[in-house]
Amino acid sequence: MKKIALITAGGKGNRMGTEIPKQFLLLNHKPVLWHTLTAFLKADQHFTFILVVPADFIDSATELINEMKIADKVTITSGGETRFHSVKNGLDHVKEPSIVFVHDAVRCLIQPDLINRCFEQAIQKGSAIPAVASTDSVRIEMEDGNMPFDRSKLRLVQTPQTFKSDLILPAFQQVYQDSFTDEATVVEAMGNVVHLIEGDYQNIKITRPMDMFIAQKILEERN
Amino acid sequence: MKKIALITAGGKGNRMGTEIPKQFLLLNHKPVLWHTLTAFLKADQHFTFILVVPADFIDSATELINEMKIADKVTITSGGETRFHSVKNGLDHVKEPSIVFVHDAVRCLIQPDLINRCFEQAIQKGSAIPAVASTDSVRIEMEDGNMPFDRSKLRLVQTPQTFKSDLILPAFQQVYQDSFTDEATVVEAMGNVVHLIEGDYQNIKITRPMDMFIAQKILEERN
Repeated sequence: MKKIALITAGGKGNRMGTEIPKQFLLLNHKPVLWHTLTAFLKADQHFTFILVVPADFIDSATELINEMKIADKVTITSGGETRFHSVKNGLDHVKEPSIVFVHDAVRCLIQPDLINRCFEQAIQKGSAIPAVASTDSVRIEMEDGNMPFDRSKLRLVQTPQTFKSDLILPAFQQVYQDSFTDEATVVEAMGNVVHLIEGDYQNIKITRPMDMFIAQKILEERN
Repeated sequence: MKKIALITAGGKGNRMGTEIPKQFLLLNHKPVLWHTLTAFLKADQHFTFILVVPADFIDSATELINEMKIADKVTITSGGETRFHSVKNGLDHVKEPSIVFVHDAVRCLIQPDLINRCFEQAIQKGSAIPAVASTDSVRIEMEDGNMPFDRSKLRLVQTPQTFKSDLILPAFQQVYQDSFTDEATVVEAMGNVVHLIEGDYQNIKITRPMDMFIAQKILEERN
């Protein structure tokens, strides 16, 4: 079965306090997006990519994949108004039965092991949503206060959210709803069950300047 | 109002794969617990401490506070069967009206600013429970599957869980319940409302070897 990584690189980087979107910031002299693409190629060199980037950054993305000499494996398209619309734009380029890995470009510490485990489970069950337990206690905020919540029931969701194409493609033909906060919620809205899989605590999302620093150090430690 | 930091250092460190409890591992040549104590003293040099440690480590803790020349500010006591029992042992040493900060020893990146904000709010509202939003999507696991949960309603709880002594002392006279997973749940069980406060993403809990590494790097960055 063909493996397609749909990499969403739509963020504008406001929380980083930079003008450059996070996925193009440099980590060990390489853009964040380079690390992400490289992890998938390490998992399987036959991966192909659909890269969804802000319209202003199509040139930067094109330059990067040319430098990486992987232009023949990559389709670049522009992002939409929400994560749903961006992923939908990307999915328009899935033309054959495949396993589709929808992945945040800024989770650049993703490791091949998790990618391969997601593949195995998606083949078997149709979906694989990586998630980890919370190491902190958890509370729910309500209008008039807050209450404790059993953290053993909670899962913090990562990417790649991985699906058989025959599950995810029809799901994205639905009319957009505000409840579509990720791909799992879209696939569920068609009446499908989605299956979690154990994620990886190092598979962090780069959102704050400190995360860039931590990511850099984790990469150094791995090398 | 007197400020007392009740530092719980009860963990056995199983997830670290070490025999030494995490609070005694070295970060920049100093034990984790040294960093924690130092942060409170930076917030206010008049802090006094109640240190709850495993019985086997009372000697190590005593040695540390002697080296730090703060033995006159610190009462050391041994931990109990659960976090509730450990904190209860510690609270037996609170003898006058005060603001009590119950803090995980392994959150050694705590910064004086958060400690001072907790104090201000606890004076005003009786309690201050630091918590941050999740940067990840969230799901609830159920017996027969899982469902999405609105992450904007969720708070990941940190320490110091901070209270006026006249709230927390009577609360810990209650009979233990399994639902007492932290101090907030104990205080609530008396019919009190607890108040959240914005935490700090750097105020991480050291639970895995990678956390020690990240903590070390964050400390280097701060210096």
